Amino acid sequence: MVQSFDLLLLFDYIGTMVFAISGTLTAAQKRLDIFGAIFIGFVTAIGGGTVRDIMLGNLPVSWIQSNNYFFVILAGILITILFKKHVIRLRNTLFLFDTIGIGVFTVLGLEKALAFGISAPIAVIMGLSSAVVGGIIRDTLTNEVPLIFHKEIYATACITGAIIFLIIYYLHVPEVICESVTVLSIIGIRLWAVKYNITMPHISLSEKE
Amino acid sequence: MVQSFDLLLLFDYIGTMVFAISGTLTAAQKRLDIFGAIFIGFVTAIGGGTVRDIMLGNLPVSWIQSNNYFFVILAGILITILFKKHVIRLRNTLFLFDTIGIGVFTVLGLEKALAFGISAPIAVIMGLSSAVVGGIIRDTLTNEVPLIFHKEIYATACITGAIIFLIIYYLHVPEVICESVTVLSIIGIRLWAVKYNITMPHISLSEKE
Amino acid sequence: MVQSFDLLLLFDYIGTMVFAISGTLTAAQKRLDIFGAIFIGFVTAIGGGTVRDIMLGNLPVSWIQSNNYFFVILAGILITILFKKHVIRLRNTLFLFDTIGIGVFTVLGLEKALAFGISAPIAVIMGLSSAVVGGIIRDTLTNEVPLIFHKEIYATACITGAIIFLIIYYLHVPEVICESVTVLSIIGIRLWAVKYNITMPHISLSEKE
Repeated sequence: MVQSFDLLLLFDYIGTMVFAISGTLTAAQKRLDIFGAIFIGFVTAIGGGTVRDIMLGNLPVSWIQSNNYFFVILAGILITILFKKHVIRLRNTLFLFDTIGIGVFTVLGLEKALAFGISAPIAVIMGLSSAVVGGIIRDTLTNEVPLIFHKEIYATACITGAIIFLIIYYLHVPEVICESVTVLSIIGIRLWAVKYNITMPHISLSEKE
Repeated sequence: MVQSFDLLLLFDYIGTMVFAISGTLTAAQKRLDIFGAIFIGFVTAIGGGTVRDIMLGNLPVSWIQSNNYFFVILAGILITILFKKHVIRLRNTLFLFDTIGIGVFTVLGLEKALAFGISAPIAVIMGLSSAVVGGIIRDTLTNEVPLIFHKEIYATACITGAIIFLIIYYLHVPEVICESVTVLSIIGIRLWAVKYNITMPHISLSEKE
Repeated sequence: MVQSFDLLLLFDYIGTMVFAISGTLTAAQKRLDIFGAIFIGFVTAIGGGTVRDIMLGNLPVSWIQSNNYFFVILAGILITILFKKHVIRLRNTLFLFDTIGIGVFTVLGLEKALAFGISAPIAVIMGLSSAVVGGIIRDTLTNEVPLIFHKEIYATACITGAIIFLIIYYLHVPEVICESVTVLSIIGIRLWAVKYNITMPHISLSEKE
């Protein structure tokens, strides 16, 4: 179990750093100043876990209890500011780590909710929040309708992964296998959706459609 | 008292469902995808109570401690997505239940704050937050200035109702009567304001006005 | 120490009132109605401390535990609504008190974080959050990219001040001196930056720049 946790933790840090990079890049595209970029980088990285921890009552929130997240995020932000051209060229690598990140965040959020005795459907929401709320805050602060509300299969991958986790978890499959299968499912669904350009249907209010 | 509480709880569920419907409709008008609609439906329904619970320290927040809210909200969202044309035609009914909802949310928020030993003026703010914050989050996430800041007597109805509650509550009027009078006052003020198209004055910064 | 605290508390109230005034003025510029102005005035004044308290787990949040903040904020809002032309003419005075306010908020947030056993780098973030989050919420709710992300040395002044505080605090300089030096540093940096029109550099993503 320890091994599984260590690997999860490693990917948690990598995911956090990639989220910080994504926030910093978004801020740069919006022509914010360096402080704006640092701030948006931070909240993108810690937003999801923070909102989850607050709703669960797990306070002080996780990231302020250890300096590790702080330094991982700061590293992501500084790398982006200093080497922005190179970072932008790593688009595909970043996309992959971002996808691994949301898989890991979903699993960690789900497990934390279950540890707090939260029921299965709400635990799915907590897993999802961990993965998507950072990006929603990033887009709201830069005055955009959150990307996740109108583009890409992203949340759907997390929700599907979370449901898979719960099913095999309640079948007493060992936790490390639950975690691996879930993260791989989320990655698989997202890559598949992006490759075939699959998006969620929109709801129309017009009579004709 | 049990009877009063049961009725309040019933209207709490109805109000929550109507808020979920309102969020889903707003998302559809903004041409968000189905996930966006579900997400906005959820946060509109639980936003007010969540912010109130967090500020009071009532954690984990109420809605994650029971599955009832989850299923009520999900039902509201699914009904809207599946039967959107019919839902839109029910505008007047929805408006009425929305109005009952904010009345009930105000009373429940107020009572919860008082139970936490919060002073009267702050308890009014907690009642108001329960009723209006969900809609503010909905509008912010869909990149609009919150409707409540520039249209309709809505918050004013809640504040007036909350003050009426406190006055008769401290006069030792039985709680069930306090609750009923408050909810009916809020409904009355809002219907009256909408009927006569009464809005709050704006503040102008120009010298001429 | 008591004396230092009293003076800090006085400036805390003044800063809170100035933040309420700034929120109310922003709402008026956006042509929101009176409720909108009151709401924005409130969240601008209490936003930073509220988010800090929630992340630390210091609940119920400070401002709902005493009526003082409520009345200070209400006074600021009412003064702005009633005497808006005069308030606008006091621009320079307001700017000065706003600057004192962010200095004091930074110190109070920092000290509260340290009292919660939070590490130095995260305590800096908590100090900064106390000072800037209210304004970020104000701008987000009025549908603007937060001013602080693209204008003025403001956050940088708070961060520099917070680091100065920590250095001299760990050198066992008496707390009252730490507090005074920090607040004066923050004021000094901001006034200097505004006088010489110094801003943070922007990050550019274009190849040419």
